[in-house]
Amino acid sequence: MKPVLYLIPSPLSDVPVTGVLPSDCLDRVRNLTYFVVEELRTARRYLSRAGLSVATLHFSELNEHTRDEELYPLLEPLRKGYSMGLISEAGLPAVADPGAGLVALAHKEGFPVEPMPGPSSLMMALMASGLNGQQFAFNGYLPVKPEARRRRIKELEKRSGAEGQTQLFIETPYRNGALMNDLLDTCMESTRITLAIDLTSPGSFICTLTVEEWKKNKPDFEVKWHKKPCVFILQA
Amino acid sequence: MKPVLYLIPSPLSDVPVTGVLPSDCLDRVRNLTYFVVEELRTARRYLSRAGLSVATLHFSELNEHTRDEELYPLLEPLRKGYSMGLISEAGLPAVADPGAGLVALAHKEGFPVEPMPGPSSLMMALMASGLNGQQFAFNGYLPVKPEARRRRIKELEKRSGAEGQTQLFIETPYRNGALMNDLLDTCMESTRITLAIDLTSPGSFICTLTVEEWKKNKPDFEVKWHKKPCVFILQA
Repeated sequence: MKPVLYLIPSPLSDVPVTGVLPSDCLDRVRNLTYFVVEELRTARRYLSRAGLSVATLHFSELNEHTRDEELYPLLEPLRKGYSMGLISEAGLPAVADPGAGLVALAHKEGFPVEPMPGPSSLMMALMASGLNGQQFAFNGYLPVKPEARRRRIKELEKRSGAEGQTQLFIETPYRNGALMNDLLDTCMESTRITLAIDLTSPGSFICTLTVEEWKKNKPDFEVKWHKKPCVFILQA
Repeated sequence: MKPVLYLIPSPLSDVPVTGVLPSDCLDRVRNLTYFVVEELRTARRYLSRAGLSVATLHFSELNEHTRDEELYPLLEPLRKGYSMGLISEAGLPAVADPGAGLVALAHKEGFPVEPMPGPSSLMMALMASGLNGQQFAFNGYLPVKPEARRRRIKELEKRSGAEGQTQLFIETPYRNGALMNDLLDTCMESTRITLAIDLTSPGSFICTLTVEEWKKNKPDFEVKWHKKPCVFILQA
């Protein structure tokens, strides 16, 4: 059998591994020795909790700074006959996270790629939002500069209204409060906004309100949700 | 503690439940008695395999024909103090499947909504595609009429090229071959197309090629992949 590149979802918050991956997938992860990971420290902790002896494992790093020409050596274990795992820092590898280039290279060299089911903050936010999940777009990060950001928010709101396409986006956690203020200043009163904060953690928060309602119930990004990861969803 | 509406992912193919949900989530499902499900037969089989005594469970149905005014009674268990589960036919409830209206109603009545991690054919296809997962859109079904369908394919290809937004869509399985032919007739030779067929099943197939390459390696939707579910992804 050909060695496989497994795409291994990782925890969104500090939860036991028995809340992250199905047990059959955990078993398969436990058979691996080679891993490409976004962040060594968190990957080691995750795999250790999954019952692997991390001291015996081989790790390579792949993150947003990895250049295309650095991908080739990362697949060396596959070429030597060993299956390996790709793990990003939180959630699904290669979705809103690095890894797509490595997956493409594995395809190109004819190695099977096997995605495992697991937590996706985007999908968990969308399914719990109560907003339209029949058509949606994930837009990554919005521009940082105020003018460009407001223009982008207006565009997304317009597209949502015109096409019925629900709009998802994220922000660097310490800027969540500023983004929320921009949304409330820029969007129509009737536009619905979902905040999905710190998903899967015991203190997670998911709420969908209109802009008008959020203005009367401002989320506390300064203290309560300080630097917590948040998925924003908008439906006009 | 308030009763909770759990959003429970379901299998994409005929696999053991230990390959679908994390064991902590399975434990929580086993404590439930009330379920709203898209399809009674498949939900019963799924829950039975998960170790529940289905004869003692209470089921209500929610599908694409359920009208908004029929949602209210479905949440009656929550109002009586019982947590309940929402299950769609395959994958995540309320994402490319019915359920969003029920989730919105639960929010409105102040009941916590808790999404569980699990298989999403869209995300598993995207992460394994090797295409851009930093920005993407799910477009549901394309139009059935030939003219409108080709126009839509052109639009999606154009948007992918202009905005760098990867485009996902699905088709009723018996029409997968016709859609693939339309894609090959309509798209530029350099456009990349991923087919993710029958995900999580032992015979699953994930492949990304350019239109030019696909024309020389046509997928066999007539026999081999006949009526198998397929996620299509396009990147210009």
